[in-house]
Amino acid sequence: MKLEKLVGDRFKERPSDCQIDSHAIMLRGGYMKYVANGIFSSYMPLKRTTRKIEAIIRDEMDKIDGQEVQFPVVMPASLWQESGRYESIGSELLRFSDRNKSPHVLGMTHEEAAVHLVREYGQGYTKYPFMIYQIQTKFRDEARPRGGLIRVREFTMKDAYSFHTSQEDLEQYYDKCHKAYENIFARAGVPEVISVQSDSGMMGGSISHEFMLLTPIGEDSIAICPECGYRANMEAAESIINNTKDAESKALELVYTPDIHTIEDVCEFLKTPTDKSCKAVVYQKNADDSYIVVFIRGDLDVNETKLRNYLGFDIHPAVITEESGLFAGYIGPVGITENCRVLLDNSLKNTNNLSCGGNKPEYHYIGLDVERDCPDAEYSDFAKIAEGGICPCCGKPAINISRGIEVGNIFQLGTKYTKSMNMTYLDAQGESHNPIMGCYGIGVGRLAASVCEAKHDDYGPIWPISIAPWEVHICAVRADDPEVKKTADELYETLTAMGIEVIYDDRANVSAGVMFSDADLLGCPVRVTVSPRNLKENCCEITARDKSFAHKPAVADTASKVQEIVNELKAQLAVK
Amino acid sequence: MKLEKLVGDRFKERPSDCQIDSHAIMLRGGYMKYVANGIFSSYMPLKRTTRKIEAIIRDEMDKIDGQEVQFPVVMPASLWQESGRYESIGSELLRFSDRNKSPHVLGMTHEEAAVHLVREYGQGYTKYPFMIYQIQTKFRDEARPRGGLIRVREFTMKDAYSFHTSQEDLEQYYDKCHKAYENIFARAGVPEVISVQSDSGMMGGSISHEFMLLTPIGEDSIAICPECGYRANMEAAESIINNTKDAESKALELVYTPDIHTIEDVCEFLKTPTDKSCKAVVYQKNADDSYIVVFIRGDLDVNETKLRNYLGFDIHPAVITEESGLFAGYIGPVGITENCRVLLDNSLKNTNNLSCGGNKPEYHYIGLDVERDCPDAEYSDFAKIAEGGICPCCGKPAINISRGIEVGNIFQLGTKYTKSMNMTYLDAQGESHNPIMGCYGIGVGRLAASVCEAKHDDYGPIWPISIAPWEVHICAVRADDPEVKKTADELYETLTAMGIEVIYDDRANVSAGVMFSDADLLGCPVRVTVSPRNLKENCCEITARDKSFAHKPAVADTASKVQEIVNELKAQLAVK
Repeated sequence: MKLEKLVGDRFKERPSDCQIDSHAIMLRGGYMKYVANGIFSSYMPLKRTTRKIEAIIRDEMDKIDGQEVQFPVVMPASLWQESGRYESIGSELLRFSDRNKSPHVLGMTHEEAAVHLVREYGQGYTKYPFMIYQIQTKFRDEARPRGGLIRVREFTMKDAYSFHTSQEDLEQYYDKCHKAYENIFARAGVPEVISVQSDSGMMGGSISHEFMLLTPIGEDSIAICPECGYRANMEAAESIINNTKDAESKALELVYTPDIHTIEDVCEFLKTPTDKSCKAVVYQKNADDSYIVVFIRGDLDVNETKLRNYLGFDIHPAVITEESGLFAGYIGPVGITENCRVLLDNSLKNTNNLSCGGNKPEYHYIGLDVERDCPDAEYSDFAKIAEGGICPCCGKPAINISRGIEVGNIFQLGTKYTKSMNMTYLDAQGESHNPIMGCYGIGVGRLAASVCEAKHDDYGPIWPISIAPWEVHICAVRADDPEVKKTADELYETLTAMGIEVIYDDRANVSAGVMFSDADLLGCPVRVTVSPRNLKENCCEITARDKSFAHKPAVADTASKVQEIVNELKAQLAVK
Repeated sequence: MKLEKLVGDRFKERPSDCQIDSHAIMLRGGYMKYVANGIFSSYMPLKRTTRKIEAIIRDEMDKIDGQEVQFPVVMPASLWQESGRYESIGSELLRFSDRNKSPHVLGMTHEEAAVHLVREYGQGYTKYPFMIYQIQTKFRDEARPRGGLIRVREFTMKDAYSFHTSQEDLEQYYDKCHKAYENIFARAGVPEVISVQSDSGMMGGSISHEFMLLTPIGEDSIAICPECGYRANMEAAESIINNTKDAESKALELVYTPDIHTIEDVCEFLKTPTDKSCKAVVYQKNADDSYIVVFIRGDLDVNETKLRNYLGFDIHPAVITEESGLFAGYIGPVGITENCRVLLDNSLKNTNNLSCGGNKPEYHYIGLDVERDCPDAEYSDFAKIAEGGICPCCGKPAINISRGIEVGNIFQLGTKYTKSMNMTYLDAQGESHNPIMGCYGIGVGRLAASVCEAKHDDYGPIWPISIAPWEVHICAVRADDPEVKKTADELYETLTAMGIEVIYDDRANVSAGVMFSDADLLGCPVRVTVSPRNLKENCCEITARDKSFAHKPAVADTASKVQEIVNELKAQLAVK
């Protein structure tokens, strides 16, 4: 491919509205173009990269006996009503009516379609296990798309669904898929992707993992224990707090605290540390706006996903009305209105001499002993694990909080969908059961952007050879020099004939500086420069995009040297 | 791949609601499953076939310098408002609002998105010509989906868009693309696909072609001249009628024709042949319901697309009200109300002594001489060309009307989209112009179904090797016989190691009859049968799905014989 013919513009300037580097690079490098909020078109270089990622995914899915199928993008609402998700999912599920006023949805995931496809096939136990997958466009009507391809509304995703007759069989397959995912990320050039335990609450299953590429710009927080290797996302990481009670519990006492609302103000006023206070966080149930009050130690925060999973329904931060019986800024666990559900975080166990709201405007309690003063409280883990927190695995106070991009996930779904959609099989004894499902997703565009995020410099991406738009970039500097042109032309033809993917820049009217910055933006791992200066020494210059090598082979040896390098780079990304 | 593990059921019975064979076969053979009206999921065999078709298309598009890109499925309405199509296209364009009440559409074609993607890139004449294409899911909210994959609502399509600075350059590229299409159909196993001139009225260009697979179940009618090779679809084929006037024109006379409404009744009553009558066909303009009356020779029919293109707006068959001034059954060109637009088909030129409506209830005229009695009439070609009609190319009365499925189309679009969307380039003289576009489509699923329609028998499809789900189907008849199993296993491994795609049926509990009918339904071109009977003769049996060959090589020679056959079958489909 001649660079001169490549459709798309490349820019020097970083677009002002890009928060993250991969987004800026993909716009600057002619990879994609904004169409609407969270919706992009792709130019050829990105399309080549995503097709290579898809090929890697397909290969690894086929190796674990996946069968490629295709579900529709547009599905009738009835399919989603069967599982109950037509009602339970919020406005990220795009609902619309067709010309006959029949309600439909745009697929954002395909559990329902998968069960629909195999419901009749899977009626006998001998058909199990099996896995079907697709690579298909999906749409999720995100409230806040951002970060270029990191969080979009329209995206291409590989989604896989496995069906089993026992939990053990699912777990075996789940482990195989975990390994396949490791292979995919390693082959795509990001072996550093780690899997972390994740919350699978709303999905209905018990065990799930997210695959995370650690990066400061990631949207997700992950708790990692460097001592024992424990890794979990914030929803899944249990917050463990070991309190020590003061030797003596003081009496509960109401004190006048005028104009004081925040927990910090209260502690300042009462001259107590925040971890000696009991904070109230108030939510409302989405369905009926009833109140849920969570009490937690004053220095900690509530993880809403943990709370949601505990409750089993969706909630939102509360708007506290006058009729509620709650007094914002003065809510405490003692004598609180019965007009709400009260939950206590485990961080309040074994505490005394805390301050808390007095359930009366401008009053707080001091001397709270939670077990003494709230004898029938309902405790669970609702707290966000914090930096330096106790590792739920090894017990050491060593937790680090890192940020990451979720590039894939795997779930043990259980029978949530097969039960609701009435998919059954007969076992060897003729008894009927619901099959057990697993599901496994990877966002193709997000993985491309994540690799770009992990592998780039100020000048552009440093693509791993496995997913680079092209393997080799030839720059014919001073292509108006007949010898340069002839040498570069021959090299282009030779390398292409060898089966190497080459992008060839032979623009005669362009400076070396522009050529090199374009090459940096396209990010091909191997660059070959043919220039009058090199030809004087009868050589070409082979350099790595990541600067890890530079060679000056003789002109006649250049093609074979390039091939050797390409093979070596490919071998580095191969998996056993 | 073991057949036993293939997800999907195969049936003996033809589903009762299938009108065409390919639809029935694809349901019976476990190729796809109905999800909603015009929406299907695909199982692995169909997915493999469509992926092979896509690979062929991609290869041919790349060869003519196409650059693969990707446009969104979901597009903002604003993009379609730019071209004016948001308003002009009917309810087959699916419109909906996202969570922010912002109007969007589901892409049914991507001219707008293509112009949007390259509008900035294409500002200088040196960038031209270029072509971009995608293979992507599309949605067209068809009123009447039918025929399985022949006319669906959701489909995968390759759509390509080329941009040029001159009509000559477009025409050159158009010819290259025409040749690429011929290659695609030949490589997919249907070299019999023909191109026909087509109407491109509403698309804005002048020249266009449809690629048709001739089959009686086709939805489209095509005029073909066996004398000179002329081929056109009904909209594009000019209807030529050479009338001979009677020596003497009688006087125009109003006659009482009670209770007579149809043209046949009138001719019967007046004892004249239908080609001596003048028929009225009445339409209304969609925009304002104003009336358009087309007069045509009584034995001919109006082609509505010709009429639409002539008018330049959309119309529908009329509902004739009392206020209209028209009298259904008695409408004629003489003395007709001025409350309508009157058009005459060319078939009324050089006629006399015709009958026609009297524009008065229960009266007809006889003795109509159109040129004499309607002196200022507006003539054009509105008639459907008929079997035995005059060829517009060679003039012989030899036209055959055949039916076909449109499997692809190519259009010269002109500047319709670049003008409306304000895409311009500067030429060498610094003058601004709109680029000239071409567009080129192929429906992937429809092509798969069309091949199935063209190549099948009562038992299933006869896939060309290039797009068969697998190349070779091994049937191990009596797989419970250890020697059969061992021989078949080894053959499976050997052929797979040779890079041949094999589906292997080693089900021990299944009769030879079921095995063979399953093999017929999967339609792989080469079948290898390993059975106790063959092994007694120390041979295997290689048969063609299309019965064109049968061999009994020795067991040891079977793999190499299969390879030879596979290579030969592939070579037959290769293009120069």
